[in-house]
Amino acid sequence: MTIDKNYLSNIKKIQKDIDKILISYPFPDRPKYLYDPIKYVLNGKGKRLRPVLLILTGNAFGVEDIDLKNAALAVELLHNFTLVHDDIMDNDQMRHGQLTVQKKWDTSTSILAGDAIFVEAQRLIGKINTNSQIIFKRFNDVALDVCIGQAYDKENEGNEEITLDEYLHMIQNKTGALIGLCVEIPALLSSQDSKVCEQLREFGYNIGKAFQIQDDILEIFNDAKSMGKSLGSDILLKKQTALTITARKIVPKEWSEFCYNIENYTIEKMINMLRSFFDQHNIYSEAQSLSDKYLQDGLDNLSFVPESNREELKLFTNYLKNREY
Amino acid sequence: MTIDKNYLSNIKKIQKDIDKILISYPFPDRPKYLYDPIKYVLNGKGKRLRPVLLILTGNAFGVEDIDLKNAALAVELLHNFTLVHDDIMDNDQMRHGQLTVQKKWDTSTSILAGDAIFVEAQRLIGKINTNSQIIFKRFNDVALDVCIGQAYDKENEGNEEITLDEYLHMIQNKTGALIGLCVEIPALLSSQDSKVCEQLREFGYNIGKAFQIQDDILEIFNDAKSMGKSLGSDILLKKQTALTITARKIVPKEWSEFCYNIENYTIEKMINMLRSFFDQHNIYSEAQSLSDKYLQDGLDNLSFVPESNREELKLFTNYLKNREY
Repeated sequence: MTIDKNYLSNIKKIQKDIDKILISYPFPDRPKYLYDPIKYVLNGKGKRLRPVLLILTGNAFGVEDIDLKNAALAVELLHNFTLVHDDIMDNDQMRHGQLTVQKKWDTSTSILAGDAIFVEAQRLIGKINTNSQIIFKRFNDVALDVCIGQAYDKENEGNEEITLDEYLHMIQNKTGALIGLCVEIPALLSSQDSKVCEQLREFGYNIGKAFQIQDDILEIFNDAKSMGKSLGSDILLKKQTALTITARKIVPKEWSEFCYNIENYTIEKMINMLRSFFDQHNIYSEAQSLSDKYLQDGLDNLSFVPESNREELKLFTNYLKNREY
Repeated sequence: MTIDKNYLSNIKKIQKDIDKILISYPFPDRPKYLYDPIKYVLNGKGKRLRPVLLILTGNAFGVEDIDLKNAALAVELLHNFTLVHDDIMDNDQMRHGQLTVQKKWDTSTSILAGDAIFVEAQRLIGKINTNSQIIFKRFNDVALDVCIGQAYDKENEGNEEITLDEYLHMIQNKTGALIGLCVEIPALLSSQDSKVCEQLREFGYNIGKAFQIQDDILEIFNDAKSMGKSLGSDILLKKQTALTITARKIVPKEWSEFCYNIENYTIEKMINMLRSFFDQHNIYSEAQSLSDKYLQDGLDNLSFVPESNREELKLFTNYLKNREY
């Protein structure tokens, strides 16, 4: 199934709405040390995938009020907080098509900007009036999941013994949990029963894992411009990804030799060599299948969701399946 | 008024109770990257001033339930989150009598540990059942105040034109806001009217400013052991404090000459010279008077608080007045 043009233009409209709100967010001018980098971050060209999903799900469940808008902004801010801090930890240079905060300013500025973006996310969640306590609880449970995921990610840097299961557990925390929250919050706002909320959360875990595996693939197979961040840092940090773990699993000897030989090349050359290797040994297609499997698992979760609310989430899953950036 | 021995032993008992809870806090073992440094931080020898104040105020207002305990832990965790991140920004070596997280581990570990401590604080606040939405809102308003205070503090490093008013505005955000929250939360938990909550908040602002000015003084006039952090970093970073700003205000020429001459000495020698200078020019006593003035302003705020609830806060103010570490 390809993506319907009307669907795409609806998504672009929501993205633009989110961008507009973020760009004109009523932050004060001072202290400039705090607000200049925050405004800069929110002006970056993010995909706004999480608030888009939250709003689409809200529409599916008939929630379209101020609570939904605040929740959508809150998940985007939570996401941006983690990016700002992760960029320090990974020493990344580029994010959303511009220099990272710690490259444009410094580490201290970047830590504090991230902290305050996170606080702003909490303040938005604090404005929610419907089922506020459970939503607040879930929001912070997920924030902890994301920290846990990032901790496993850091712990596993250069760990060439990490299994695919361990990797999937890590990305479920780091990426899946927040995407799960984006579909769970609208269900909580419309007071769905706990079985529906739980299955939606699982749906989010599954499509979130698919999304992260796609990211791993795109990091190597797309150019830097469309990803909006610098290529190669994951390789430099010896990060384990769906591709490298699959390579180690299915062609261990060849992969080990390849890693030994690749070390002295430039980043550009390394990426070309990786592309050839992953193509040649069917690792690309293996990772792609794994991503597709999780999208399908997500669709399976939807059988527990009232039929009238399903269509929007199926369309979004299809949109993810076809994304190229 | 000196401090009553029974009062002191009651405070020590509460401190010990808090320490006990923090040390045995049910954090999981894994990921060790995340939880090892968090456990380490909470094992440090903090004064637990904020939760002590919150619990004493809770007792004064007749609140003594699980909500109060969760709030007490939450403010202590919020405080520790800011310390962990501030220590990175200030490149501090020692905190609460042990190496800072970024010295014992590294910057990345320290950023993530701080983030997760903050999330845990939110999760505790999220457990509060009485007037939860307003308490949650106030908690995050204050978290933002603390970020704003830290931003002004960083902005003003080496700014030798900062006025005393600007400095006081900075410490009201950085220190006063959270101490204000410690007295406001128990009032909110016992559903006091907004006038009482507001005056208690002001009381906290005032005693918080007094406390910070005392800290500035103790940083120079006490030894490193009792302060639990390394002396001298503030000087090295050219931080503006109540002492340096007062010096610049009342003996500008002498202070300017002194600063010019002091640069080549060791930290130990610098501190001795600073002590003499501040004594000789009555700067020590000026700063002490300023701190006392804010303690008195705090006591004045209490006239708007029901008489039966005042005594505990008066005793705490007296306790602060007499503190030596």
